[in-house]
Amino acid sequence: MPKIAPPQPWRDALGTRVRELRAERQWSQETLAERADVHTTYVSGIERGRRNVSIDILHRLAVAFGVEIRDLF
Amino acid sequence: MPKIAPPQPWRDALGTRVRELRAERQWSQETLAERADVHTTYVSGIERGRRNVSIDILHRLAVAFGVEIRDLF
Repeated sequence: MPKIAPPQPWRDALGTRVRELRAERQWSQETLAERADVHTTYVSGIERGRRNVSIDILHRLAVAFGVEIRDLF
Repeated sequence: MPKIAPPQPWRDALGTRVRELRAERQWSQETLAERADVHTTYVSGIERGRRNVSIDILHRLAVAFGVEIRDLF
């Protein structure tokens, strides 16, 4: 039986927010990945709520979007 | 020559904010560690800007303080 991870709504909320900010700028996941210096698959994982994102990555996302870290939440 | 890490002001800002929220509640680092289910040395590391804190830990800190994750920034 595969272990089912408990729901982590805070990760889902971050994913939704990142997708929102990305869509506002009409960026592809590749464009965001390039600007934030992360792998494209990592952006996809963040947006699907699958990543336990660190504050260093949150900082790079915020800089890429031109917002404050708190604006990612 | 020891490698000197580049400044990471976003980690320092989080550390300052966590210390502020903890002091407002007159909690020791041990009390916060217990409430957030992290090791006391980890709380100390966060407050000194030495930890690349993950969103799961940010969530636990926010729940312990009774605030939203965005209030940690």
